[in-house]
Amino acid sequence: ARAFSVPLQRPADCGAHRYFDSSRLACAPCGAHQRQSAGGSSCVCEPGYRMVFSNGGFSVTCEKCPENMSGVTQDGWNCISCPKGLTSEGNCKCPNNEILVERSMDGILLNEALCIRCNGSEQSFSASDASGSRCVRCEKTFIQVSKSCDCNTPNILTGGLCFLAHEGLPPKGIASVRFAQLGITLTSAWFLKNLQSSAFACWLHSNLTACQALGNMCVMNMNSLSSSSTDACGLFQYIFVSTARVGIVHSIPYWRHNLPWLYYGDQPGLASQVLEKNHFPTTFTFKGTDKDVKLQFIAASFDAAGNFLKWQSLEGGILQLCPDTQTKLNAAYDFGTTYQQSCKISVSKILLDFANPVFYDLFLEYNGGNGQQDLWAVPVLNLNLQYNEKFVNQGSNMNNWLLTRRFFLVDALSGKENDLRQPPRVIRIASKITISIRLVSRTQRGTIYPPLVTVAYTDVLIQNPETQTVMVSFTVSYEMNQSEAQIQTDIALGVLGGLAVLWSLLKTAGWKRRTGSSIIDLQTFFKFLLFYAGDLANVFFIITVGTGIYWLVFFKAQQFVSVLLPLPSQEEDFVTYVACAFSLKTLQFLHLLVSQLTVDIFFIDWERPKGKVLKAVEGEGVVKSTVAPVSIWRTYFIANEWNEIQTVRKINPLFQVLAVLFFLEVLGFSNLALMDASSSLTRSSESYVAPWSRILRFGVSAALWVAIAILQVIFFAVIYERFVEDKISQFVDLCCVSNVSISL
Amino acid sequence: ARAFSVPLQRPADCGAHRYFDSSRLACAPCGAHQRQSAGGSSCVCEPGYRMVFSNGGFSVTCEKCPENMSGVTQDGWNCISCPKGLTSEGNCKCPNNEILVERSMDGILLNEALCIRCNGSEQSFSASDASGSRCVRCEKTFIQVSKSCDCNTPNILTGGLCFLAHEGLPPKGIASVRFAQLGITLTSAWFLKNLQSSAFACWLHSNLTACQALGNMCVMNMNSLSSSSTDACGLFQYIFVSTARVGIVHSIPYWRHNLPWLYYGDQPGLASQVLEKNHFPTTFTFKGTDKDVKLQFIAASFDAAGNFLKWQSLEGGILQLCPDTQTKLNAAYDFGTTYQQSCKISVSKILLDFANPVFYDLFLEYNGGNGQQDLWAVPVLNLNLQYNEKFVNQGSNMNNWLLTRRFFLVDALSGKENDLRQPPRVIRIASKITISIRLVSRTQRGTIYPPLVTVAYTDVLIQNPETQTVMVSFTVSYEMNQSEAQIQTDIALGVLGGLAVLWSLLKTAGWKRRTGSSIIDLQTFFKFLLFYAGDLANVFFIITVGTGIYWLVFFKAQQFVSVLLPLPSQEEDFVTYVACAFSLKTLQFLHLLVSQLTVDIFFIDWERPKGKVLKAVEGEGVVKSTVAPVSIWRTYFIANEWNEIQTVRKINPLFQVLAVLFFLEVLGFSNLALMDASSSLTRSSESYVAPWSRILRFGVSAALWVAIAILQVIFFAVIYERFVEDKISQFVDLCCVSNVSISL
Repeated sequence: ARAFSVPLQRPADCGAHRYFDSSRLACAPCGAHQRQSAGGSSCVCEPGYRMVFSNGGFSVTCEKCPENMSGVTQDGWNCISCPKGLTSEGNCKCPNNEILVERSMDGILLNEALCIRCNGSEQSFSASDASGSRCVRCEKTFIQVSKSCDCNTPNILTGGLCFLAHEGLPPKGIASVRFAQLGITLTSAWFLKNLQSSAFACWLHSNLTACQALGNMCVMNMNSLSSSSTDACGLFQYIFVSTARVGIVHSIPYWRHNLPWLYYGDQPGLASQVLEKNHFPTTFTFKGTDKDVKLQFIAASFDAAGNFLKWQSLEGGILQLCPDTQTKLNAAYDFGTTYQQSCKISVSKILLDFANPVFYDLFLEYNGGNGQQDLWAVPVLNLNLQYNEKFVNQGSNMNNWLLTRRFFLVDALSGKENDLRQPPRVIRIASKITISIRLVSRTQRGTIYPPLVTVAYTDVLIQNPETQTVMVSFTVSYEMNQSEAQIQTDIALGVLGGLAVLWSLLKTAGWKRRTGSSIIDLQTFFKFLLFYAGDLANVFFIITVGTGIYWLVFFKAQQFVSVLLPLPSQEEDFVTYVACAFSLKTLQFLHLLVSQLTVDIFFIDWERPKGKVLKAVEGEGVVKSTVAPVSIWRTYFIANEWNEIQTVRKINPLFQVLAVLFFLEVLGFSNLALMDASSSLTRSSESYVAPWSRILRFGVSAALWVAIAILQVIFFAVIYERFVEDKISQFVDLCCVSNVSISL
Repeated sequence: ARAFSVPLQRPADCGAHRYFDSSRLACAPCGAHQRQSAGGSSCVCEPGYRMVFSNGGFSVTCEKCPENMSGVTQDGWNCISCPKGLTSEGNCKCPNNEILVERSMDGILLNEALCIRCNGSEQSFSASDASGSRCVRCEKTFIQVSKSCDCNTPNILTGGLCFLAHEGLPPKGIASVRFAQLGITLTSAWFLKNLQSSAFACWLHSNLTACQALGNMCVMNMNSLSSSSTDACGLFQYIFVSTARVGIVHSIPYWRHNLPWLYYGDQPGLASQVLEKNHFPTTFTFKGTDKDVKLQFIAASFDAAGNFLKWQSLEGGILQLCPDTQTKLNAAYDFGTTYQQSCKISVSKILLDFANPVFYDLFLEYNGGNGQQDLWAVPVLNLNLQYNEKFVNQGSNMNNWLLTRRFFLVDALSGKENDLRQPPRVIRIASKITISIRLVSRTQRGTIYPPLVTVAYTDVLIQNPETQTVMVSFTVSYEMNQSEAQIQTDIALGVLGGLAVLWSLLKTAGWKRRTGSSIIDLQTFFKFLLFYAGDLANVFFIITVGTGIYWLVFFKAQQFVSVLLPLPSQEEDFVTYVACAFSLKTLQFLHLLVSQLTVDIFFIDWERPKGKVLKAVEGEGVVKSTVAPVSIWRTYFIANEWNEIQTVRKINPLFQVLAVLFFLEVLGFSNLALMDASSSLTRSSESYVAPWSRILRFGVSAALWVAIAILQVIFFAVIYERFVEDKISQFVDLCCVSNVSISL
């Protein structure tokens, strides 16, 4: 072996008679009569042998126990005789309801182990504890119901609790969980153990933890209600309906005393009342103190057994399954920042991090006045919910929705079929969580409707956790009813389009006058259409740039939120306008090109000949005098100059492109097009980068392009053409000097 | 209150006589004689009262205990008389070494509680357990040393263990930890409890766990050795030196049996031997199977008490404190990908996630042949290590380094001063971890030197965990000795520079011949320098573009790794060359501009006058005949055309810029400049994006620019000038037609 190189040995490779030496990181043999301990890092004596010496498990000496005391004590150091037999480990064993006693009360080691039955009679009420080593007071429901430590008929024993048989008890529940996406209905070990006992304890004793546990089992079954079955939600509804007399909590009609609040009632049309009747009491701003700028979500969290864990703020990525830095995770709750995050997570990591499900009741915290913090209950739209076997929440018609309150992130508990210590067969993951905030129309002060959380679950059949992955996403979206802005845009389009018609008519009339004919024929009509195409393109361009600048200024600069950006689905019209502007402008450009190419130009040289020329005529020998010709080179010169000014432009295209790119990318104007609340040009590398808005991108780019073009025009018109050179003026001067005129 | 709005109440706000009702999420009053339980979610009876009825803690009925039985049993359901007094909770209390017995062995409730002393004599050896409720076998070291359950002098009792007094025992250790960055030395509660007992158990009994715990305490003190003190590392060295007879592990001289391997010896100059004498046995490639392409780091992990936890692969971000998706975290171990990650983490999150430190011994796994996986021990360079009070690892001189083996990520344990249940006063975080891989010079097959892990720790004084943050970073860097490439570049530079001198001399000679003078004066010398500037700029450009393309092709396209990119610190010369090329080219350009501006041009019109002109002379009344003048407009025309071809270019600059930007950004050629092993043009949005390499950026951009320019030149020369128009040929034709010639 080379220097500093060691073979790789794992504790599992050592086998039964070797242990893993943690100092050498290699396997080492155990001594005589020993075998590997449970952790693999030390040795223990084989059954029937007691420890004589041990220095932490590394040099262990074992001694065989004699025949008459063949058992070994629980701590492994002494031999003892076991009257009721030995376990496979070599220790004494006792029957189920008897405890194993190896030492007397004051610690004296006995020679023979005793199996003692605990006294369950009045006053003592003792039974064996879970480990079978002490007598402790037995389960209190046993004592309360049957005044003993037994639960015999007609009392009902379920889930380790004893209940008095009653009429009016809730019916027997079905301990099954339905995973509709996979089409699997399995019998859950957790439900088998706890469903009936939770229902009874909640009904009979109003035991708050049991009621929460029952509610959680209903939530694990996707809150699916069905009038025919008595599954977890059926039992919950039974108790809910039958306990109307205990009253409601905080004047909310769906929240019964003692029971968790699971449903918002099941009449159709309730959803729009919940979501739109009341406005959220606080207003939000883009630039203010923390309270007005952040959405302070807070959740009451419960474990599966129904215990209240704590009030949990959602900051720190509680609902965000994809790992990321704190700054980026917390950006989701900045008001106005559209947040999107998605990634693939391996199933083995989910099984490791979310072994026990946590159930959340979500609220939005706000300042209720008088220094008291109030909470607004946030409704949940569970897309997997089935009402009488129909997925009522998956459509876009709000009247069919059945809103609920409680949800979880990962359920790896209800999918365990037979044994709670084994891995589950199916798990359910909240793979798509969306929080949607809607701004009230025509608000001036940032009033919103109550937010809505939409959760979509994915059922995953566990086959190979190391390689299976799940795609999860978390979104916070902001929307408002854009129909008003849409109407205004249409009105502007109509008005300007009409003005464009008039303008095009004027241009056509001018063209007809120049061509001389006064008959309105097909050619006139085509000319009008081409002129109109150009003007309509300008109208579309003005509308779209105006829209972009409007959104840019009014969204980014507002303090009290009164407008929100359109969602990508609401931008379709805008994209159509831009496309129309582009195609019509192309048409106008081709028209201009064609007319420029087909124009006829006449050059007239007004120069008078300077005298006569004596020219010898061939053949005749006579000297004639003719007019001195004017050189044609003069006309060539003017024509050449005319040709060259055909492509003169007011601006320099290379500078335009480079300047716009400089402003967009280097100075950071492109950051104004992000769908967040900040109007700063820079984004630190650590902060969250929101997605782009198409309207804002177009607005920023067009505004920059037009602004830089205008600056160039001003520069050329005012400075360059005045002090350096103006090609048109030069040409005019040339024509004057050379006495040549042109006509088209 | 508005609909769906509830006030926020937390369990802590309920006070002593109310409990937190988890179904209403509000505080509710406890019944008579009751107070809030520890969790806050239920009520318990006050001291002196026993429970009569409880349905899970929500409706509790309490009854006062009579005077003669004023104590309450531990389970709270019965009254009992306490002979030795009551605790503050109203339960019975017993002295320290006596157990509290309320029920007899078979569970019968006693009227009077008993305090029983456990029998510690021979054979039984029993003492009270931790909870004071049972007699169990007492600590085995007590039994082994003093054959009883007491540890009296001359035996030494420390850390809950009993040791036989010896000469040759390790000296008394100092239980202090030094935080050098803050200048604090504090006495650690963990060290006070465990330092001496670990040292004794390791020395006397070779207890492997105790030896690991002692090593961990030395690591928590930054492996700092000092000949004068007997702190944790001093004790470790004492044991290391004194146990030379037990032998070494796997032929590694620094790894003693039974002890953890902490140091690589302390002679100077050892570091270069460790890092450079042997090559790592496996080779790596860029495009191969997983084994050759990934660095398979694996760490043996131990907890603070010295127990071996498991073999831990570093994949999944074990050493990366910044959260990120799995794909990006695992990209750190792709061979050839330069990985950099840094972020700010809040101290409260660190205290939550890393309450118990984990210690890692790092190895690099490779295939050792015969199907056996071998491990190469990876040395650690701890920048906070002090050797005799000097920070020997912080310089760049390898001969002073003292390499170590074990490190941790977060130590929140040694900073606890008095009580292990309180938060620590100071914590230490590995804020800067760097893994550097060096390629062996002149390797053809991807051979590397053993990797080196450099760890820098930050000491944080805990004042306000919620607001304090720490900047952490993790880097994987690849380097090789670039001196060979440097030499080759210098040689090329020298050769081409010499050729450039000859070329400039030729140009100067040509210029002198054209000017006509043959004196070599100062002006000639300046002209030579200006010509040389231009040629030298070309030489620099050729060298730098060649270097960029060399690295691009040879680094990205290689299969067996034989070259690595230069580090940013090794690129300084390259940047200098580019700067020289730019400045010299500017000089040449100015020279060209000036010479173009100061040239004298003569136009000669060869046209013969066509006859004589009869011109009336003013005043004299005589008609004279003079030669018919040739029109000057001809010369004007030629001169105008000549002026316009001064700025004709072979390529179109706007197209050049747009085409290069298109290739770089849209097609993704800029991704070739990333410091990773992939030569693909696209990077998926989920994958890790490596940092840029300056040489590759220049190489890719320059290669694209030159390639597109050449394509444009070819296009213009072959197609455009042949079929559309060639301005130079047109000018020549014009001169022919007009019979005008020009001379400079």
